[in-house]
Amino acid sequence: MAIITLTTDLGYKDFYQAALKGSILSLAPNVTLVDITHDISAFNIPQAAFVLKNAFNYFPKGSVHLIGIDSVFNQDTRYLATRYKGHFFVGSDNGIFSLLFDEAPEEIVELNIMQDLKFLHFPLTDIFAKAACHLAKGGKLKEIGLPVEDLEEKMSLQPVIERNIIRGSVIYVDIFQNVITNITKDLFTRIQKNREFTLFFRRNESISQLSWHYNEVPEGEKLCLFGISNHLEIAINKGNASGLLGLNVGDIVRIEFYP
Amino acid sequence: MAIITLTTDLGYKDFYQAALKGSILSLAPNVTLVDITHDISAFNIPQAAFVLKNAFNYFPKGSVHLIGIDSVFNQDTRYLATRYKGHFFVGSDNGIFSLLFDEAPEEIVELNIMQDLKFLHFPLTDIFAKAACHLAKGGKLKEIGLPVEDLEEKMSLQPVIERNIIRGSVIYVDIFQNVITNITKDLFTRIQKNREFTLFFRRNESISQLSWHYNEVPEGEKLCLFGISNHLEIAINKGNASGLLGLNVGDIVRIEFYP
Amino acid sequence: MAIITLTTDLGYKDFYQAALKGSILSLAPNVTLVDITHDISAFNIPQAAFVLKNAFNYFPKGSVHLIGIDSVFNQDTRYLATRYKGHFFVGSDNGIFSLLFDEAPEEIVELNIMQDLKFLHFPLTDIFAKAACHLAKGGKLKEIGLPVEDLEEKMSLQPVIERNIIRGSVIYVDIFQNVITNITKDLFTRIQKNREFTLFFRRNESISQLSWHYNEVPEGEKLCLFGISNHLEIAINKGNASGLLGLNVGDIVRIEFYP
Repeated sequence: MAIITLTTDLGYKDFYQAALKGSILSLAPNVTLVDITHDISAFNIPQAAFVLKNAFNYFPKGSVHLIGIDSVFNQDTRYLATRYKGHFFVGSDNGIFSLLFDEAPEEIVELNIMQDLKFLHFPLTDIFAKAACHLAKGGKLKEIGLPVEDLEEKMSLQPVIERNIIRGSVIYVDIFQNVITNITKDLFTRIQKNREFTLFFRRNESISQLSWHYNEVPEGEKLCLFGISNHLEIAINKGNASGLLGLNVGDIVRIEFYP
Repeated sequence: MAIITLTTDLGYKDFYQAALKGSILSLAPNVTLVDITHDISAFNIPQAAFVLKNAFNYFPKGSVHLIGIDSVFNQDTRYLATRYKGHFFVGSDNGIFSLLFDEAPEEIVELNIMQDLKFLHFPLTDIFAKAACHLAKGGKLKEIGLPVEDLEEKMSLQPVIERNIIRGSVIYVDIFQNVITNITKDLFTRIQKNREFTLFFRRNESISQLSWHYNEVPEGEKLCLFGISNHLEIAINKGNASGLLGLNVGDIVRIEFYP
Repeated sequence: MAIITLTTDLGYKDFYQAALKGSILSLAPNVTLVDITHDISAFNIPQAAFVLKNAFNYFPKGSVHLIGIDSVFNQDTRYLATRYKGHFFVGSDNGIFSLLFDEAPEEIVELNIMQDLKFLHFPLTDIFAKAACHLAKGGKLKEIGLPVEDLEEKMSLQPVIERNIIRGSVIYVDIFQNVITNITKDLFTRIQKNREFTLFFRRNESISQLSWHYNEVPEGEKLCLFGISNHLEIAINKGNASGLLGLNVGDIVRIEFYP
């Protein structure tokens, strides 16, 4: 029996995530349930995409990842199940899939396991739980939906490259207050070509060295490194980078390469 | 092996909920543990009752629901295990059972699996875990306690009906800041008899239409609907109803039906 | 298959704890995972030690306790696995083991299951998860590391005894705002020798009676007792002792015994 992971904005305080787990365990008592998190900010699709994109690959292939963000009934929203890199994903077609996947998924179906969607109150238990359990038990995608070609597109802010400059932005601040940008290691390496660089942010802040580890600088000093998400990260060794440097989601950073 | 769910005010930060889980897994290694929540406000019995009442039915019959609210040793409090609608509930007889159950449970016993209660420090691990594991393994209620007839009664604030008016109150605010009242769909339907209505709250706020879904109104607009708890709920589509409308637990709402 | 527990400062919001769980379940699909907590304050080794020290004994012998506090790569830090009272502990040798254990562990090894530590980004998934799964499957310590004699010592603030006085300090405040000191029941009993006593704290506060249970005093009144951690605790029955009495971690308390 496979793993079902949960990524939602339902929180831990109410009965919603428990209802979801109860629904799943009623259908598939032997499944292994893992909370990715229920602490996504309400309706925050990009945040959910960032978290799940960085987590799913640690799970074995065949795992089913249920996404409960902005998934109340909506006249125009389709409910999908997809296969991507050997993992299954179930959720609303609200743009999250386009943020999650770097390339086209192997398979997409629009769920047709429930007929009278109009009276549906809680798609997570009524549809998503059923689809996830079907897949966790080894069922096929085509048994729970009809093939779909395209996904709802949601644009993520991409870095802009101008000659020797990369302009990026902050996309996530983690619990340690590390500041994570949308500049990936691949992009950085491709533009850097082994040149020196300076990373600029806020008015007068800059960093000109890439660290491997947080504690390569003294405690309380700022650094930049590629964290485990492989995104460029601005941090303070054992300190609160977001608060002390005044960097929040959406803020701009700029890298200049020399000469 | 059945499921044991946990509903407590122990939080996630301290070692208390972990100690409870360790105790259970020591007695019943193959049980499936599910956190309903450990984020009930300290000693808040009505809140715990609302959450568990809405969650337990999603679990398969035979599940054991352990309730750890206000369950430190108390000279006058009995420890009970009950069967209700095919589910088992274990907790202190502090009024929570009367709030949880709409009708008399099928069976109630006062736990007698520990003798020297005076020196008991942590009933959750010492008594409740034992009782829950016994039940999860298929043991009988009468093997862990003596039959009891009555439960400690705790009154919940019920809506008042006067001719064409229902006066209710807010009983819960969820993570999305949706405002949940004590007016059930059954009560509303019975009094409404298909008539028009206006829901009044705060000084000048009112809603005269019942929605099926949160996004039937434009984003940022208020609505009322029967949420998945089947209680009348005041919400703002993708907004913070409790904050923006100034509605909190205990506040009064009034529905007038016409003519 | 044994239990693996997790005690970290990774929080529940980011993808870090999920990545750790995914890594473990990829290696040992049948393991039982239990969160002790992921809400340890960032880098707070004494807090992690207090929580895990009080929790681990509730789990069956043979359980593996993975500690993820201050465990990013550090040139000078060793990664250890230890056996203590029949339980296994895996973590960084940053002093936490010396706070966790009251006596020397039965066995200590320095993990050698990974060679190129310099490029290691996330020891939790790369090393700790592997070591924990090896032990959970019944593998031996000597198969994953070389014997080590000594542990990094981290001093905890110990109570000072002067004739008829114990001077202690607050080491933890729990979710109920109970104030937990470093004075153990053993120490208290040994010095008390059945004498009367007064516990002094803040400027003018004192308590001269030891309670067995929180509700031995009226609601809202202060008391002291030995809680389930067996440490002297200052509490207010159904109230916020830390806030109302102004007691926080590090504050001094004093017990005088008479005559």
